[in-house]
Amino acid sequence: MYFIPWDTMELQIGKLSAVAIAKKYGTPLYVYDKQIILQKIQDLKDAFPNTNICYAIKANANFTLLKLIAQQGVGADCCNVVEMTLAKEAGFDMSKSVFTTVNPTNKDLEKAMQLGILINLDDISIFPRLLQYGTPQVISFRVNPGFGKGKFNEVNVGGEGSKFGMDEETLSKAYALAKESGIKRFGLHVHTGCIIFDEEYFQKLVRKVLEIAARIETSLDIRFEWIDLGSGFGVPYEPGESPIDMHHLGKVFRQAFTHPAKLIIEPGRYIVAQSGTILTEVTTVKGKFIGLDASMATLIRPALYDAYHPFILANDPEKENTESYNLVGPVCETTDFFARDRAMPKLQEGNILAIQVSGAYGFVMASRYNGQSFPAEVLIDNEKDFLIRKKETTEDLLRGQL
Amino acid sequence: MYFIPWDTMELQIGKLSAVAIAKKYGTPLYVYDKQIILQKIQDLKDAFPNTNICYAIKANANFTLLKLIAQQGVGADCCNVVEMTLAKEAGFDMSKSVFTTVNPTNKDLEKAMQLGILINLDDISIFPRLLQYGTPQVISFRVNPGFGKGKFNEVNVGGEGSKFGMDEETLSKAYALAKESGIKRFGLHVHTGCIIFDEEYFQKLVRKVLEIAARIETSLDIRFEWIDLGSGFGVPYEPGESPIDMHHLGKVFRQAFTHPAKLIIEPGRYIVAQSGTILTEVTTVKGKFIGLDASMATLIRPALYDAYHPFILANDPEKENTESYNLVGPVCETTDFFARDRAMPKLQEGNILAIQVSGAYGFVMASRYNGQSFPAEVLIDNEKDFLIRKKETTEDLLRGQL
Repeated sequence: MYFIPWDTMELQIGKLSAVAIAKKYGTPLYVYDKQIILQKIQDLKDAFPNTNICYAIKANANFTLLKLIAQQGVGADCCNVVEMTLAKEAGFDMSKSVFTTVNPTNKDLEKAMQLGILINLDDISIFPRLLQYGTPQVISFRVNPGFGKGKFNEVNVGGEGSKFGMDEETLSKAYALAKESGIKRFGLHVHTGCIIFDEEYFQKLVRKVLEIAARIETSLDIRFEWIDLGSGFGVPYEPGESPIDMHHLGKVFRQAFTHPAKLIIEPGRYIVAQSGTILTEVTTVKGKFIGLDASMATLIRPALYDAYHPFILANDPEKENTESYNLVGPVCETTDFFARDRAMPKLQEGNILAIQVSGAYGFVMASRYNGQSFPAEVLIDNEKDFLIRKKETTEDLLRGQL
Repeated sequence: MYFIPWDTMELQIGKLSAVAIAKKYGTPLYVYDKQIILQKIQDLKDAFPNTNICYAIKANANFTLLKLIAQQGVGADCCNVVEMTLAKEAGFDMSKSVFTTVNPTNKDLEKAMQLGILINLDDISIFPRLLQYGTPQVISFRVNPGFGKGKFNEVNVGGEGSKFGMDEETLSKAYALAKESGIKRFGLHVHTGCIIFDEEYFQKLVRKVLEIAARIETSLDIRFEWIDLGSGFGVPYEPGESPIDMHHLGKVFRQAFTHPAKLIIEPGRYIVAQSGTILTEVTTVKGKFIGLDASMATLIRPALYDAYHPFILANDPEKENTESYNLVGPVCETTDFFARDRAMPKLQEGNILAIQVSGAYGFVMASRYNGQSFPAEVLIDNEKDFLIRKKETTEDLLRGQL
């Protein structure tokens, strides 16, 4: 523990100095602020009363964070057998959780049946494979409403040419097949994209889904007990992006969601993104190029999506931006580039930078590329710091190799 | 072991059926053909006599493969402390190996000094940091010759705006500083890109580097004992790409390389790419979309570089291509897309596909994204198969988490 006076110039995570945390645990380092996670879950609970909130484990699967999130009484959104296993072990209530999948293996299907988790199937062809493991009490299928949205093309998962979901015609056949198989309870699932700020888009999506739901209910004489609207709630990364007013968005959803079914949402990024910071040290100052000890192996979003992350000089976050830098990592390819022409204060070797909004799709997408072993993870609870994952050793890298 | 009759219709890896290997070990699975690795190393030795060949560990760091490659008497090209540790433990001769780095940490520099490995520094600013750990016998700096080349922008690592190397003016200052520090033996390093087939480019590069070398030798009255020309030897991935005639390329190099220094090359991809195959099962046939159990977590090159890999129906590799498919994985984002409109034979659930040329920048870039634990790796030596890395278990995923 470090005592940090309130007038410190250094960036704080919780009530601790980011620089002190970096020195204690070494860099690069993933750090999470527990209070932010709790606040985000509370915001969702307040905005979406009487809703089944399922945390999308794919955003961050750190086991301590999973246990923490499970303790808040929310369910889990799992996408395969490993995530279902982790969710159960972390204490998520399986009766409130969902298995939302694309191209599942038979092992995934078998596990879902064993756990009795609500199953969202992505294609009619998967249903007969599921029946090998028994007939589920409830079944849900994923509709592709014919449109999608996303901050990047890579995370727009709706519309034509998408690998996700079924058109209404196939969807209707899937429910007919399920009904014929003796299933009597039904859900409906949609998820069309990520990092969406546009309330009108969500409104349009809800209306479209309810239209489709009504047509299927009428034509097949079934009732949907659950409607799972996925997620996609935007989180601000860039200057000029404002946080969603979750309270207002909840109202928009409630106004549009006129169906008596239980609403399910699957937020992942919204819960964990802003809680997470990567602390990284400036190793090299080479003219305009600032070499960091974090890399595309630590955080691949900039390389993969050209995603923007805020970079803050943790030693003095209020210092004036006077320089324009290229922020790069130690990996031997040009892809390992975090930011071009980024306005920053004058930097020097040994400075600690905070890569903010790194709690979602950060560690889960990390690799060991270029000898970058997995970094440690630390949880901050106000003035306390807890190591929740050790940095990998060479021994860890060799484990399982024969 | 499986006995495979010679007239099998199935794809073979070594002398074994790829389908049988997939069934024995499960999919997705990385499989390497030992004989191809040995052949590629022999090709390089034949084409580059009296050359220090350093295998670039970043291409594939499987420990069994490292030991196999070390046994062939080649050195290692390492980029950080972890790779140097692995190289030493795998039995590479450190006196023949190089540490080629960009933005190294102090731990990297300390380890390089401990091992007495030839050090290629990327910037003059790193030299004083190195001296904290002693004065090396030899020092080498990396020049950016002002141009670069690569199949993708992401792997072009030369030219203006590159994070790699120094311009000639800075380079000259770096050698002057090293000479002042009492160092008497020098090397020179260049590496400007990857997957290059163009012999003329290599010729131009060698000439340019020797011009720079001559000017620095004259102005500073030093001699280069080693010149490290990196690598970048092209490997065919796509239809229409022909393999490099390594014998001829060696001649081109020898003709252009008129300097008495010892030549060093750093091939990685060339040695391992073609030895590697990912075996993956078709889980879902959804119209034009073929769902596989391999994903962007298994092989990120298509998602990251839009890279082409050959996909072969292992059950019947000679079968006529009659369909046009989108080949996708189980990860819940649109990025998880291997190939669009790929001509293939008619596919069905349970088919085994071989993703070829996956031995380089495959497993090393893998992640655990979307609950995809690391796959197993198998080495084939003619008619024998060896498990060289176990598939990760849930227990492995939780190890190190506190």
